[in-house]
Order: sequence, then structure tokens, then C-alpha cells
Amino acid sequence: MRPILPGNKFPLPYSTRCFVFGGQRWSSSKVSSTQANQTISNKQLLYTTDPLTPGSIFFLPHGTRIFNKLIHFMKNQQQKYGFQEVITPLIYKTKLWEMSGHWENYKDDMFKVVGHDLSKEEEIHEHSHEHNDNSEGLHDYALKPMNCPGHCLIFSKFDRSYKELPVRFSDFSSLHRNEASGALSGLTRVRRFHQDDGHIFCEAHQINEEITNTLNLIKDTYKVFGIGENDIEFFLSTRPEDKFIGDVKDWDHAESELTAVLDKTAGNDKWSIREGDGAFYGPKIDILLKDAFNKKHQVGTIQLDFQLPQRFDLSYKSQSGNNDKRPIMVHRAVFGSLERFFAILLDHYQGKWPFWLNPRQAVIIPVNESHQEAAKALQKQLQGDIMSEQNEVSPMTGYNFYVDVDDRWESIGSRTRDAISKGYSYILTIGDKDISSQTVAIRSRDDRKITSMSAEEIYQKFIDLERNYL
Amino acid sequence: MRPILPGNKFPLPYSTRCFVFGGQRWSSSKVSSTQANQTISNKQLLYTTDPLTPGSIFFLPHGTRIFNKLIHFMKNQQQKYGFQEVITPLIYKTKLWEMSGHWENYKDDMFKVVGHDLSKEEEIHEHSHEHNDNSEGLHDYALKPMNCPGHCLIFSKFDRSYKELPVRFSDFSSLHRNEASGALSGLTRVRRFHQDDGHIFCEAHQINEEITNTLNLIKDTYKVFGIGENDIEFFLSTRPEDKFIGDVKDWDHAESELTAVLDKTAGNDKWSIREGDGAFYGPKIDILLKDAFNKKHQVGTIQLDFQLPQRFDLSYKSQSGNNDKRPIMVHRAVFGSLERFFAILLDHYQGKWPFWLNPRQAVIIPVNESHQEAAKALQKQLQGDIMSEQNEVSPMTGYNFYVDVDDRWESIGSRTRDAISKGYSYILTIGDKDISSQTVAIRSRDDRKITSMSAEEIYQKFIDLERNYL
Repeated sequence: MRPILPGNKFPLPYSTRCFVFGGQRWSSSKVSSTQANQTISNKQLLYTTDPLTPGSIFFLPHGTRIFNKLIHFMKNQQQKYGFQEVITPLIYKTKLWEMSGHWENYKDDMFKVVGHDLSKEEEIHEHSHEHNDNSEGLHDYALKPMNCPGHCLIFSKFDRSYKELPVRFSDFSSLHRNEASGALSGLTRVRRFHQDDGHIFCEAHQINEEITNTLNLIKDTYKVFGIGENDIEFFLSTRPEDKFIGDVKDWDHAESELTAVLDKTAGNDKWSIREGDGAFYGPKIDILLKDAFNKKHQVGTIQLDFQLPQRFDLSYKSQSGNNDKRPIMVHRAVFGSLERFFAILLDHYQGKWPFWLNPRQAVIIPVNESHQEAAKALQKQLQGDIMSEQNEVSPMTGYNFYVDVDDRWESIGSRTRDAISKGYSYILTIGDKDISSQTVAIRSRDDRKITSMSAEEIYQKFIDLERNYL
Repeated sequence: MRPILPGNKFPLPYSTRCFVFGGQRWSSSKVSSTQANQTISNKQLLYTTDPLTPGSIFFLPHGTRIFNKLIHFMKNQQQKYGFQEVITPLIYKTKLWEMSGHWENYKDDMFKVVGHDLSKEEEIHEHSHEHNDNSEGLHDYALKPMNCPGHCLIFSKFDRSYKELPVRFSDFSSLHRNEASGALSGLTRVRRFHQDDGHIFCEAHQINEEITNTLNLIKDTYKVFGIGENDIEFFLSTRPEDKFIGDVKDWDHAESELTAVLDKTAGNDKWSIREGDGAFYGPKIDILLKDAFNKKHQVGTIQLDFQLPQRFDLSYKSQSGNNDKRPIMVHRAVFGSLERFFAILLDHYQGKWPFWLNPRQAVIIPVNESHQEAAKALQKQLQGDIMSEQNEVSPMTGYNFYVDVDDRWESIGSRTRDAISKGYSYILTIGDKDISSQTVAIRSRDDRKITSMSAEEIYQKFIDLERNYL
């Protein structure tokens, strides 16, 4: 363990300021890369914004490809770790936010939603309506800033037994937080964002394994993006002095578990304590990463929560037949905010996306019109079975790549330069010689060397790159 | 063409009542299947609801698998037809809804959203704010009921040329409509739903091909779900007598194009006209399907729109260099509301999901504890490379199936009955004999016949089933 840092040396992370679990707020240096991100985005047409909805991102087609790839990646990892994806509503009545504590602690940062036709509805609704009438009149719902209360509702709807614990829900819903307009900035401070959100409901003795798995997932994930162990820092925030809920005994147990896991998984020189800096509802681990420019970003987070299970009166049947055992809840995210992680990747790669993540994986340049047909055929082949005309309907699975044809009849040199500037990973040229030898001239974005390969070899190369996250 | 039906013989579809494009409203018989849907869902744990958010569905883990499969299916088809997915915001200032005409025509069915910190923002915002002050005070945003205005914004942000038309955007965003609480019903009348939404911006001469493609996609898609051409009906709704926008000439041209396409693609005895029943902004084609019980449901829709491109002042550079050519917009959906289509499939399959769509594709029953290890190994093999322990991180692509192990040590017969009742497509049993012969005893949900196959043969069988949508 490194020397203990005072809790307030770092800007307060989100969750101590408000109530539950954030992960989209902080980076150690002022993120001045917003402008740089925008420049890359403008060139590659990745995202845009509009004053008609400040703080909400429009992902353009090529940005959407990257966004979806990140989510697809994380869904596959989560499946391995036993997470079950759920799709949960975006608006909930004020009553829910009162139950969860958000209304009391976080109301000002939530968007209120006003519906009508309220009188016809059931009791719980009327209760909530009265409440609203007493407080602010028209505000009947709020747009969710976090997924946790929705997941608690799902947990509570079924009789649960220790046999099925840990129950692990994942969710990629849009979240909305009413950030001040002055604070909005590119992809990093937004009002609408998405998390690779997950909640684990477990017994106390399962914490160790769940946190170990989460830390391993975090390290493995970051490595895929070229972020090694030396670029990751872990911080354990412990019980606040005054304001906390739950037994000191439970806190001590949880903190010693987290300490043991961090020593084992992060390595004992890789993490520090932020004494007293935990949220009032439980201790937590924040994960910071350094990007290629040595800038630090808070991304992942793991938070234990003794509070929400109590507020939602969650229970399960224990091994001894006890029917009202209370589960412990873990909030965790690996990417944190997808939008923010996207921004970090923009910085990190400077638009030179690795092949697997690249929304422009290859471009084919036919030398002249007589090679156009061959270029289109090659495109279909590399796009894979989704695009195959042999299938009336495209199959669900297979290897499919983003491949364009540039048949503007400009010089090869000028089209190649343009392709490099747009960030294509590979540039494939087809001329007479290639057609007669049934090969393609292929070069990478980052290396002038040109190689001759068959279409089948190129397709196999692409599969290998994608499978190995290169 | 069939005999012409009077326009008002059918309940008015959504889009004539309000403004743009719906697809989630109508079926010819009272959908009394809500109860039946709920029964299957309860057994298979597919979805649930809560009075804290009436009309919004919680998809449970197994329902989420089906929902995601439907979306994945449609994304693959759309890619083939040249659609580019975008991710667009959920809340927009009132100003946008004034521009689009929703505020005037559809305000009562929209959820209003209230934010704060408005004074610091830019002009357009203040304009919108003033507007609100004049009308309803606090309402600054609305939750989108449709994606079209967001897509118009994206179209308008770039200089467009005839060379890139048709531009086709697809979007799977959540949409919210403030249906009366009395009208809410299971999955079919909801307040939050998702569409396989798409908008095409094109030139007049491209309408024919775009509509043909859309009709083919619709027919091919329904066929995958066992809905043949005889179970599909097409209706062309034409220009209303009084209230319409645009030139009669443009209407006539569009209607004759749609007629030609329907004759060619649907077959000329397969469609009817609803005279004068078009939306005021353009003619449209509605697609109805009959389910296994002869109930009719409106699902897909194709709507031409002369109006929104005008309201958003959309333009492109024509071949002749004219810079302010106005594109025609096509709204189209194949599933329509995903929630509603889900309900139709629940009715249609009665919980007996085909293998490719089944959230429970196979269960492995080890005879006793000594076969448990072999069962787990088989499970990993059939779950595919996502779950393989050889990969530190799970790869993006490959064939992965939903396979469980039932190791409650009850009798084989009782576990088999339970598996059938839960809807597993295949039941795999492993005992001493199987282990010594390196085979697995496999039977389908629908046939008692038991076969011996190797694990590799079963995996290959599953791939074949999935690829062929069986």
C-alpha cells in the first residue's frame, strides 16, 4: 500500500457529493481536450451537438459504430462474469426517488417530467401525486440519473434465495443529469450519458470474489485499449467520520475485504487509501487511468451499498431458512460513462483507431472504372455474410467489416492520402495486375509498405485482428 | 388491386390522428391476449411492470435476450439496405417541437421535461424559454415521441449533395407518449416503447427503389417469423380531400409510384386503397399481418413526407448545381413498436420460441453428481467463445448460445418436464454411458425422440439453426 493520502487532496468524486455512484465527473487535469476531440470528430464525422438539446450527444453513423462496439465488447465480458442484462424504464414517479433517497439528496440535478391523466390511476400513484402537490405542484416523474433504484425494484419483485445469489444485473440505459449549462463540455460533461452499469446483489462472504472479478475485468478491459497496469491507480475510500449508515462492524468487514482484494489484485503498491472519503452508504474503490498524455481520468468505480437494500426492503431466504436476510449491493462500472470513455479514447488514439474499433476498417481504391466491378465484389466479400446476396435475410452472426469503395476517379495518391486522413486502417488497391494475379495490394494506415494478398487472406487477417482486439 | 375500401372502414391509424408516423396502435380485434402474454411471461420471466412507472416495461434478463435478438436481427438487415444507425438525444427544447409541428398537433400526448439553469444559455434557448413562459410556464423540454425531428437536425448539419442520396438513418431510441392510463395494456399500449425506426432522405426518382426495398425487407422479415405472404395485407392511403400540404402534382406522382411498387412487390391482389386516408403531409402504406389466431395487427408502415423537409428547410445540391433542392423524406418501420411486435410473437409462438430467438436454447441435465463436471464442460463448449476460459477477454464475434445446467438432483423425468415447461428448445442429458461414448443424449422440446450426438455435432447443429433462423 502506498502512503496514505488525505481524503480531500483530490477533488471530491461524484458519489460523495450526491448520493449514489457516478463515474463521469473527474479528471486530474482540466480536460482541455474537448477542442481536440471536436477536431477529430469533425474530420471523422463521429458526433455533434445542438443548442436545442444542450449536453445531449448526437452520435453520427461512424461514432455510433464505435459506441456500439464498446457496448458489444462489454456485453460479452459481462456475460462471462455472470451478468444478466435488463432493460429498465427511464421515468419513475417521484415516489420512487423518495424511496431511494434521490429526491432528498439529488433533486436539483434531476430533470422533472410532467405527465397528465393522473386521476385515473392506482393508489401508489395518488400517494405520489399528493406528495407532489404538497411540494412542487406539477412534477410527477423524474428522468432517471442512475439505474440502481430500477434494479432494486426488479430484485424485489421475486422471492429470492441464497441459492441464486449473487444476482448481477447490467444495464446500458440513457441517464440524465441536469448539469449546469456552464459546466457542459464536449463528451466529458454532458446531461445525457450511458454507463456500462451493473449491480450485484450478494451475501457478505461473496464480496471478496465479486470485487476480485470486477477488478480483473477492469484490468483486462483497459489492457485491450493499450492501458497497462502502470497506468492504472486504485483508491479505497473508507467510512466517513460522522455521517454514515450501517454498523461499524459491517464497514470494518467490508473495508478489510476490499483491502485484501486490492493487495491481491491490484498489487499492494498500486493503491492508496482516501481515509474517510467513502460515501455515507458504503466504502468504495475508484479507478483512475493515465492516458497517453499522462492525463488522469476517473473511469471505473466499485461501491458497496448498505443503504439501498434497506430502503427498498430487499431480502432473500438464507441457507438457514431465514426469510428476511438483507443482501449487500455493489454498484460497479468499468468504462464509467461511455461518452467520457469515448472522449478518453479520442485523446488516446488521436483518431488512429485500432482495426477492431475503427468505424472505417478498410477502403478499396479501384485504379480506374474497369476495376470497379472487382472492387465491389471484394467489398462484399470483406463486408462478410451480412452483406452477402446469397442470403435473402442477413444472418445474425459471422465476421463483418466496415469496408468502403472510393471510386472518385482521382489519382491513387490523392485517394490514398485522403483515406489516411480519414483514418482507414487499411487501404486496398485494385488494378489490372491485381486482377490478373487474383490479388489485392494492401497497405496499412501507419506503414507505407505494400503487400499483395488474396481476398481470402485479407478476410482472414481481418478476423485475426478483430478477435485479438488489434 | 382489390375492391376499393372506404377510408373510414378501419379505425384510423395513428398518423392521421396526430402528426407523424406511429405504428404502435391498432389491431383489428380487441387485443385480449394481454392476459395470455402475461401468463407466458410469468412462466418464462420475460418482462414486468410497476405502478411507479405505468406503461413502461421492465424487460427481465430473458426478455432482454429476445428484445436484443430482434434488434440485432434488424440492424443486420438494415445494414444490407444501406441504413446507417445513429444515436440521438431523448429530450429537446420546446422550440424543436414547434419547428416540427408536434407542439401544435401533439402536445397533449408528450411528456414535458423541466430543467433548470436556463438563464445562462444561448439565444435559441432563451427564445424557447420565452415561448414557454407565454404558454405553460415551466415546460422547457419534451421527451421525444418520434425520432424524425432529430434525424432532420442531423441531415441539416452538413452540406448535402445528390451524390450521397439516399441518406438513410436508423435509430432504436426509446420513445415516450403520454397515453391515457386507462388505455395502457401489457406490451401493446405503452408509454415507453422502441421502434426499428428509419428515415430515408431521397430524390423523387428514388422513391420507387426505396419503397420496393422496404417492402421486400418487410416481406423477408415476416417470413423469418413464419408469417407468409398470405398473412400480410397492404393498404395505400391517399391524399385527403381538404387538408393536405404540397402540390397535387407531387401527390399524384408519389401515389402512382406507390401503386406501381405495390402491384409489383406485394402482388396486385394483395393490397387495397384507403381513399383520402393519407396523412396531410403525404401518402402512406400500412402493413397488417395476421397472426396464428387470425388476429390482425398493424406493424410496419411506410410514409412519404413532403412536410418535415420543408419545416426544417432541408436541402441538397442537385446534379445541375442547384443548391436548394428539397429532399423527400420517407418514414418507415418494419417491426413498428418492438414492444408490440414482442407481444405478437408471444401470441404467435405461445412461448415456444424458435431456437434462434429462444432465451433458453438448451439445458443440460447431468444424471448425478458424478456427471456434473462433464455437464459444465459441455455448457462452456456450447456457450461458445464468449465464455471460453482460454480467452482473457471474450472476443467480439463467434457463435454463442444460451445454455444452462440443471443440477438440482431431482429425477431426470421431473427435470425434463420442467425444462419443457420453461420452453428450452433442446434438452441434453449426460450419464455414464454418454461419458464413456463421448456423446450426449439430445431431445427437442417438441419431440420425445432422443438421439446421441457428439458435443461438436450439437454445436454445429446449433450454428445451422441460428444461421437459418430456425
